[in-house]
Amino acid sequence: MLFSVLTIFPEFLTSPLSEGIIRKARNEGKIRIEISNIRDFALDRHTTTDDRPYGGGEGMVMKPEPLAAATRQVHADHPGKKRVILLSPQGTVYNQSIAERLSSTETHVVLVCGRYEGVDERFRNRYVDEEISLGDYILTGGELGALAVIDSVSRLIPGVLGCSDSADKDTFSRNLLKHPQFTRPPTFENQDVPSELLSGDHRRIEQYRFLASVQRTLERRPDLIGKVLFSDEELRLLQKHGLDRQIPGAGNTSGRS
Amino acid sequence: MLFSVLTIFPEFLTSPLSEGIIRKARNEGKIRIEISNIRDFALDRHTTTDDRPYGGGEGMVMKPEPLAAATRQVHADHPGKKRVILLSPQGTVYNQSIAERLSSTETHVVLVCGRYEGVDERFRNRYVDEEISLGDYILTGGELGALAVIDSVSRLIPGVLGCSDSADKDTFSRNLLKHPQFTRPPTFENQDVPSELLSGDHRRIEQYRFLASVQRTLERRPDLIGKVLFSDEELRLLQKHGLDRQIPGAGNTSGRS
Repeated sequence: MLFSVLTIFPEFLTSPLSEGIIRKARNEGKIRIEISNIRDFALDRHTTTDDRPYGGGEGMVMKPEPLAAATRQVHADHPGKKRVILLSPQGTVYNQSIAERLSSTETHVVLVCGRYEGVDERFRNRYVDEEISLGDYILTGGELGALAVIDSVSRLIPGVLGCSDSADKDTFSRNLLKHPQFTRPPTFENQDVPSELLSGDHRRIEQYRFLASVQRTLERRPDLIGKVLFSDEELRLLQKHGLDRQIPGAGNTSGRS
Repeated sequence: MLFSVLTIFPEFLTSPLSEGIIRKARNEGKIRIEISNIRDFALDRHTTTDDRPYGGGEGMVMKPEPLAAATRQVHADHPGKKRVILLSPQGTVYNQSIAERLSSTETHVVLVCGRYEGVDERFRNRYVDEEISLGDYILTGGELGALAVIDSVSRLIPGVLGCSDSADKDTFSRNLLKHPQFTRPPTFENQDVPSELLSGDHRRIEQYRFLASVQRTLERRPDLIGKVLFSDEELRLLQKHGLDRQIPGAGNTSGRS
């Protein structure tokens, strides 16, 4: 997978792309990252990349020509299929399904980092395939969004994570928050590890974790619980613990496949 | 505002915290950032910060003692009121309201960067005030989350942004996506700037932008539109352009204040 990042702050990206799994994935050739400085494509000797908005208002708007020239250069360097993504608060909210789609269907993702005040709409119309927002909060630029896309997509590429199946059981593939985790010591500041986890009984452990996941999702993210597909066995377990009444559609286990 | 960041990858944070508005805000003393390496608080000479989960399963869990010791050190260094936030996919989804609350009510925010596989639940129980997730996607660690919180909270602190009121009109304070932006040249690749924006008529420009904001929000984020509080004048404008029928509760403008 090749990621091209277009930014006016290339130095912003240096250290996060040189650490942890991204560094490892780059070193092993699983991913490649190219960073273009949009300023290098400015038309004037002051390397101007923004200008005042038509119609007035505060803030500056990124000019279309340098963005377009930087994007055309990526196309010229890499003629194959690619997906151009603009990071901006006006985009679709990023989620794990988008990460999975990008990691399974794309080989070259171009990440254009808007600055918050906005990019000229005509660049967007002509050059951008998809607009993505990290979430409903305002960041000064799209650089953190680009880093989040690179991290979340890279870790889905086979071989990037150490343990081959650890991505599969991640939170959002099932819309259930992960169960609480415990490690040594067995007692920490007068708090014990739950006895189920020490039982050695695999089925009991699985049941404890499943119920704890459901309970945590109900408490913290009730918006997710309706999207979970429960098996018949899971529905019976929820019923047994009185959790089925809080879950839309789970009250009646018959006729569910 | 003081931000303390607890991480096992302190180098990850270096470059993003040295660029743009964060660098400027630090230089001007508007914000301070302290980074603690959790490894420095490990109990053994191998500086172990994680261990296998009780009950089995892949991945490693962050041990409670080094996290607790690092947090206690922050309390010892800064005895005042503070808010300890754990970044993890199991948290409340971060949004602009949380950024506004943190920027207006806190003077010291402690950001604990979990690694994805999780932190020991007993650390969370004892030391964490609030758990925040950047969104419904899996990142390898909480570091990008810490950076997003620092960026989004800092830009709300008076004097951090160049233009004092530019934070007020940001997208999510009204739940409306921002209107399209245009800057020079007036024609780019055969696309003209909308005539309204060139009219010089302030009221016409405002109406164009308002309607474009509503249209864009309807297209891209129908989940937001029901949360917008429209004025009577805005509702009449929506009605005139046939947009009111798509907006919950906006079909009848009478009786709205």
